[in-house]
Amino acid sequence: MYRKLTEKRIKSLKSITGDNNVLTETADIEKYSTDESPDLKYMPETVLTPENHRQVLEIARYAVSEKFALTPRGGGTSLTGSPLPVSGGAVISFEKMNNILDIDTSSRMAVLQPGVITGDLDRQAAKYGLFYPVNPASLDSCTLGGNAATAAGGANTVRYGTTRNYLSGIKAVDGNAAEWQAGGKIVKNSTDQQLLQLVAGSEGTLSIFTSLVFRLTERPEKNAWIIAPFRDTAKVPVAAAKIFSLSLNPTMVELMDRLTLDCCRKYTGEKIEFDEYSHLLIRLDSGGHLSSSAFQDILFTAGQACLQAGAEDVLIAESAAEQEKIWKIRSSIHDAIKETCGSIFEEDVTVPVGQVSQLLTEARNISESTGYETAVYGHLGDGNIHVNFTGRNAPAKKIKEMKKSIFEAALKLGGKLSGEHGIGLTKKDYFCRYVDPSYVNLLRKVKKQFDPENILNPGKIF
Amino acid sequence: MYRKLTEKRIKSLKSITGDNNVLTETADIEKYSTDESPDLKYMPETVLTPENHRQVLEIARYAVSEKFALTPRGGGTSLTGSPLPVSGGAVISFEKMNNILDIDTSSRMAVLQPGVITGDLDRQAAKYGLFYPVNPASLDSCTLGGNAATAAGGANTVRYGTTRNYLSGIKAVDGNAAEWQAGGKIVKNSTDQQLLQLVAGSEGTLSIFTSLVFRLTERPEKNAWIIAPFRDTAKVPVAAAKIFSLSLNPTMVELMDRLTLDCCRKYTGEKIEFDEYSHLLIRLDSGGHLSSSAFQDILFTAGQACLQAGAEDVLIAESAAEQEKIWKIRSSIHDAIKETCGSIFEEDVTVPVGQVSQLLTEARNISESTGYETAVYGHLGDGNIHVNFTGRNAPAKKIKEMKKSIFEAALKLGGKLSGEHGIGLTKKDYFCRYVDPSYVNLLRKVKKQFDPENILNPGKIF
Repeated sequence: MYRKLTEKRIKSLKSITGDNNVLTETADIEKYSTDESPDLKYMPETVLTPENHRQVLEIARYAVSEKFALTPRGGGTSLTGSPLPVSGGAVISFEKMNNILDIDTSSRMAVLQPGVITGDLDRQAAKYGLFYPVNPASLDSCTLGGNAATAAGGANTVRYGTTRNYLSGIKAVDGNAAEWQAGGKIVKNSTDQQLLQLVAGSEGTLSIFTSLVFRLTERPEKNAWIIAPFRDTAKVPVAAAKIFSLSLNPTMVELMDRLTLDCCRKYTGEKIEFDEYSHLLIRLDSGGHLSSSAFQDILFTAGQACLQAGAEDVLIAESAAEQEKIWKIRSSIHDAIKETCGSIFEEDVTVPVGQVSQLLTEARNISESTGYETAVYGHLGDGNIHVNFTGRNAPAKKIKEMKKSIFEAALKLGGKLSGEHGIGLTKKDYFCRYVDPSYVNLLRKVKKQFDPENILNPGKIF
Repeated sequence: MYRKLTEKRIKSLKSITGDNNVLTETADIEKYSTDESPDLKYMPETVLTPENHRQVLEIARYAVSEKFALTPRGGGTSLTGSPLPVSGGAVISFEKMNNILDIDTSSRMAVLQPGVITGDLDRQAAKYGLFYPVNPASLDSCTLGGNAATAAGGANTVRYGTTRNYLSGIKAVDGNAAEWQAGGKIVKNSTDQQLLQLVAGSEGTLSIFTSLVFRLTERPEKNAWIIAPFRDTAKVPVAAAKIFSLSLNPTMVELMDRLTLDCCRKYTGEKIEFDEYSHLLIRLDSGGHLSSSAFQDILFTAGQACLQAGAEDVLIAESAAEQEKIWKIRSSIHDAIKETCGSIFEEDVTVPVGQVSQLLTEARNISESTGYETAVYGHLGDGNIHVNFTGRNAPAKKIKEMKKSIFEAALKLGGKLSGEHGIGLTKKDYFCRYVDPSYVNLLRKVKKQFDPENILNPGKIF
């Protein structure tokens, strides 16, 4: 179906990008054959590391004329197999297109190449008192191109929204090998916003980004984390609801259940107080010119709400060192569960915020009926919960059953398969089964327009 | 090209919706032949007022089989001719599908029919301490269906974003007469968000909405308006930039220039101090549990910044009565300019925030070279500026020239044709001329998939 990358074709690719941007040795390309999803491995025939838009465009032209697959790849931190070349062909890695081209402080916009590491943008923005608030847990290894392609979320979305809310402009190449662009350094856009929003979250199936514009926002002057341990996990969403009723505009409202904490403690070696309890983790940011005592009042109010909802204690972390420790634990969760408990799979179902308690119950029921423990954590503030079933050597049939059960539980509660990881390869079958067939049909037809030869990340989503 | 709505077809439509939901008398349908754009009038052959999803679906089926045009219409407040039936056929008015079906307080979501008036949603939400923050100036006459179809903005978008950021679920009928749905009562969605975001802002050209889900947010406890008059309009954006540098997270940052104020004063009869000056209007909202004195400190800081930037005075409005007066003036602007100065046209170009000063200069230059005064107002905080050229009986050729000049000025500054009004009919030619041809080409192809017979709001956007 797809043509192989023969020596002749490799030579042609080299003439486009230069010899040193075409990798073919197994030792060089092996690391592009996996992402963070368990048990998937697809070797690319070659890995291309283009250096500019023009090279990407020419690669696409050549791929269309010769018919081989192109799979764009950011930091490779996907949990769904999305950047894996299931039909062979070339992986396009943006590791050499990793420059921030412009931070326009007067318009509060950043123009950059897709390979920029997400955390680097915020570090640059901070120099000008600006803030890029979207923070996937893989902040320091994922890329903004990958974030745009998955419309990535993270823990700060409660207050700040997802990548979708910051992506303001794109330059891209579609599967017809046509270059196109939309948006710009503009906040509000009723001119060419539709297709920009369509390709955000399309996981590289509709277009390859070559340049991106992101809106920056104001940097909070003060922030603090509140940590509240609860004996009963079921009380954590109740406390979260209480926080929301106070209109404190929290940045994060996160759950880490007992098993999650236990994995983190073992993995990071950090001492965690109340490590046998489930934790509610709240981050509050304050804008400018709020006095310290006014901010303390707000923290006190939030802390009181946690105690009233049944917290065993309340810890407030304001110093950079304390906060770093907390983020170290929080952002280690995925690896911690994988390494110490064994991750059978991690899903990121999303349900209405008011249904989170019910979802936790359903997860526990599945755990009890199958005998595999669950480590549950994630974004209470937006109903996007990461459910990990843990253990070792679970039989494939059992895994399938458990996945089906957790998806169906979420759907029954008015939820969806994925809140932020996307569909990729691992949820493709479920997407086709559980998403409205008319929606899937429309998406297929749209795909055909952007990529009639199906060369862009084939085999993903549907 | 389109079939006429003969008596036989009208009879069939009556069998779908009931006799009283099919209007054909001139006296009944005339008001659907215009919107708020100047000088446009297109009579529909009939106006349908369906009462539920099923009726809309059957209307679409019948329209596809008989090939006549369907033009969905919300409150008719568009400034672009978007809801006008340029190819005749039926206007679908959602005036009888105007129920809020559910306000889910635990998930902070509202489920509603597309004909609900935008202001009504916020009034309902307020009963539960919740907030729907998107506030187009036509708040009390526009509908949420229309807002979704145009991805409407408004003055609060600086802090809260546009309709696009709140639209969480849709049920719709496309031009194949297929019903489809996406999203739900969920905040974060990486499952079926792409097409939802695609049809938001599609102005009824891709699908007709029959049910919508909107996210609600926390209601600010305190708010205040700051009004600062400036002798020199050019200093207003400078003051706005100063406000942003303070990280106060303002809700609105608006400009009303001298002529705008003058029109408002005459039109509303309200006394306006410093009415010969341009005004900066800022709204600040505060979250929960901020003491009055802490909020006063913030207001004082913002006021000082205005004075330092050259304001003649600073007025702070905290009482409901004062705020109502300000909103009355602010939301009257469009009508005020039209009635008292004569509106040649109003455009809503959008530029990078840092380029607003330059845009104001360009508008003044066009005004001086053509001899028609400009009234300029709008959203300094997001670079979306409403430029009105005023006067009476401007010749068509002159109008065309002036429009072209202001669009080209915005484009030269890295901006776009429209920040929130959309393209509709009035900017269609400019869309095709100034938007990336590859973008237009892709959008055409997408349209063809959603609406192969071109029955949905034909003749709009491109």
